Parts: sequence; C-alpha cells; structure tokens
Amino acid sequence: MGLKFQRQFSVPFYESDRFKEMKISNILAIALQVSGEQSVELDRSDVWLWEHYRLFWAVIDYELEIKRLPRFMENITIETEATSYNKFFCYRDFCFLSETGELLLKMTSTWVLMNLESRKVDRVSDEIVAPYASEKITKVLRPHKFSKFVAEETATYPVRFSDLDMNGHVNNAKYYDWAVDMLGLDFLATHTPKHIYIKYNHEVKYGEQAIAELARTEATTLHRINGNSSEIEIEWAKTDDK
Amino acid sequence: MGLKFQRQFSVPFYESDRFKEMKISNILAIALQVSGEQSVELDRSDVWLWEHYRLFWAVIDYELEIKRLPRFMENITIETEATSYNKFFCYRDFCFLSETGELLLKMTSTWVLMNLESRKVDRVSDEIVAPYASEKITKVLRPHKFSKFVAEETATYPVRFSDLDMNGHVNNAKYYDWAVDMLGLDFLATHTPKHIYIKYNHEVKYGEQAIAELARTEATTLHRINGNSSEIEIEWAKTDDK
Repeated sequence: MGLKFQRQFSVPFYESDRFKEMKISNILAIALQVSGEQSVELDRSDVWLWEHYRLFWAVIDYELEIKRLPRFMENITIETEATSYNKFFCYRDFCFLSETGELLLKMTSTWVLMNLESRKVDRVSDEIVAPYASEKITKVLRPHKFSKFVAEETATYPVRFSDLDMNGHVNNAKYYDWAVDMLGLDFLATHTPKHIYIKYNHEVKYGEQAIAELARTEATTLHRINGNSSEIEIEWAKTDDK
Repeated sequence: MGLKFQRQFSVPFYESDRFKEMKISNILAIALQVSGEQSVELDRSDVWLWEHYRLFWAVIDYELEIKRLPRFMENITIETEATSYNKFFCYRDFCFLSETGELLLKMTSTWVLMNLESRKVDRVSDEIVAPYASEKITKVLRPHKFSKFVAEETATYPVRFSDLDMNGHVNNAKYYDWAVDMLGLDFLATHTPKHIYIKYNHEVKYGEQAIAELARTEATTLHRINGNSSEIEIEWAKTDDK
C-alpha cells in the first residue's frame, strides 16, 4: 500500500554471529536505519519531526518470520514500507531478500510518535505520515498475546553506556540479546529462531538493572525484562549442530 | 608504501553513541571489515588463507589518534594500507577522512597470522602478503609501553553469546566497551578520547568472566582485562558538556 523503499546491504563480519548468521540484534538495527533513510528521502527525518513537532518515533513491537537468516558476506536487499496507520499506531513492514529475490525474513512492526518532554504517545497527524502513502485505517491491529509464565531462570544486566543509543535509551536490539544470551551456546548451536515476537512496554534506563526472566516450553522460549517492561517469545526449530 | 584501499561509509544510527559520535567499538569493527574487503579484492580472503595455510589474521594492538570522532549520518572515507611487515608482524594503517578530506582519526595496528589448531603465531610468508605491496622490513616496531598501575576499581563481565564473533572469539571491540563502560555517563559526557592504545595478549573465552580493572590519572585512564590479557590506555580531553 505504502511507498516502498529499498537498499542493498552486505552482512559484515561484525554483524555475523558465532555461526556466520546475521545477528538478530543487527537485523533490528539495520531495519531501523533503513526506515530512517526512507524518512530522510521523504523529508520526514527525525530532525524534521523534532523541529516541527517535538516528537520522535518509537517502535513498540516487532514480529519476525524467518525462513533463513542472512549469512556473512551475503548481499541482500532490505525493503521497507509503511503499510497503514490509525489514530495512534503506524505499521511498517520489512522484507529481507536474497540476491535472487528469495524472501529470507519478514518483519512487521508497530510505531508510535512520542513527545520527548512528556514521554507520552501523541496522535498521528496526516501531515507527518502523508509522504509515506500508507493507508489510513480505523481499526487497531491485534497485537500478539504473550503467554504468562513462571520464570525458571533469571539473569541481571546492569545498563551500560555502550548499551545506549543517541536518544539516550537502551537500544531496542539490546533487549533481544539480554533475553537470548541466557539460552547459552549449546542451545544456540542446535536451534534457529523461526518466529520472534518482541513487545516494548517500558524502557530500562541508564543506571538501572535489567532483570531478565526465562521459561522454556517444547519449541518456544518465553522471556520478560523487568516485570513486563519488555516481552519476547521465540519459536525455535531444531537444527543440526551448526 | 602499500596499496591503498578506500571505501565510503555513512555512520548509521546504531553505531552512534549517546552523544551522536561514532562508537569506538564500531570504529574498530569497520576497520577490520574494510581490511577484510581489501583482502578479498586482492584474492587473499580469510577463506583463501584458511584453505591454503590453515591460518587466520589476529590484531594484537591498536593505536588511535583522534582529531574528531565521525558523527551520526556523516559521510566519511575509510582508507587502509598494509604499510610493512617483518618475520612475524604485519603493520596496517587506517585513516578516517571527512567529506572534505580532513583527517578525523588515524589508527595504526599490528597483525599476526595465527594457526587455528595450535593457536600459535606463524611466520609471515611472502606469498600471503605480496599482493598488498607492503614493505618488508627487518626491525620490529616498538610497541607502546603500558603503565603499570594499582587498580582503583574493578568490574566483572561474564562473556555472553552476543559478545562472540564468527571465529568464536570475543570480538576485539568488546574489550574497549568493557573498559570504558566503567567510566560512567557523567565522565563520558565531559571527556572525549584523543589517544587510545589497546593491546591484546590473551583472549577471554566463552564461559569465562572478564575482570576489568581501572585506574585514573590526571588526563589518562588505565585499564586491564583479566590480569594483562588486554591492556588499554586512553588520553582524554575535557570537553563542554556534550
């Protein structure tokens, strides 16, 4: 529905994990970057948004469907599109494609406009989103319902300077690492994520500690950071030893 | 002296720190990436090196002289050159240049060829390095002499899956973050690094803990990870509150 924006990308060494697959945290990071590039192209940069409205974009959830993770040195295309929006939420899709056009992964995401001072969600005005040509809808898309669980394991992570992005927030991608690092190398050597749900409710701030909780079911791992400040669910496929 | 290799780069959101300056860890990471790209171009890729010699490159020290850090969205040029080599060491420089050609920072580095099985340093053979056209020298360049110090503060970091690169090592850039995160936001908001020395002696492995030690003098911070497994010294300039 919306305008599509594409960019080529080659997966560098430092964005590849132990198994030469692109790190999920870097998939989230580059997606954010590419959507930012589209906004610059459409004269709706973060600076513009700040100067005209004193607002900034925040992602409140992600859903990833992964056929195959991009690999080290692989040339991929990242395509993004702001699909639709309603009074408070904007929806944006990302497709990561192989060189032959094969769909590697699809990510959907929900965005809100936040007021920098009040830290409250603002209404989506047409002037801000018009250039993206996304569809105005009235309904609110139903978010993923995270399973309640009793924690089997916990881990504590102090928030560090290197975790912060230039907005002074813990970078979105960090929560995934906090959650998944708990699973350990042996598990990650024999499992690959197929479906990932991430929901951000409240941020963790510099100087605070992130307490990550984990429970495992048959094929799924369930994660929470600081109560339900962030929730993550991952469906895994068993693989041969990578 | 050696062949020069250049690539353009724009500093993305997720490689920018709290103060919109390129993260030092990403400066180290992109440098490694760009030297790898030169090696691919010269038919001396990591894969080639592994298939022909069962060797891999390891950086054992870095020295950075920083005039100004690249900033978010800034278009820079990264230029690298393998300058010279002797029996065991290869020397490589990196220059980060602004769009107008101004030198932002210069980095020198020392590399060794490691045997993947024995984990021992191998001799530098002419066949491996010939394509870089760097100068063969007999002398060993004098490395920086790190100050001995009594630790004033320590911090403990468990090695996590997300810290590993695809060689299964803790990524080189991580040691810098472990060291500098100890300095805290208030210090980093009012100081900028001008001169950085990093020396890698022994790696920290997955499943181990990194113990970082810190001492401060007038304008310098001194860091060690796990005894002297890694040593870092940083000279800081005081800046206005960023």
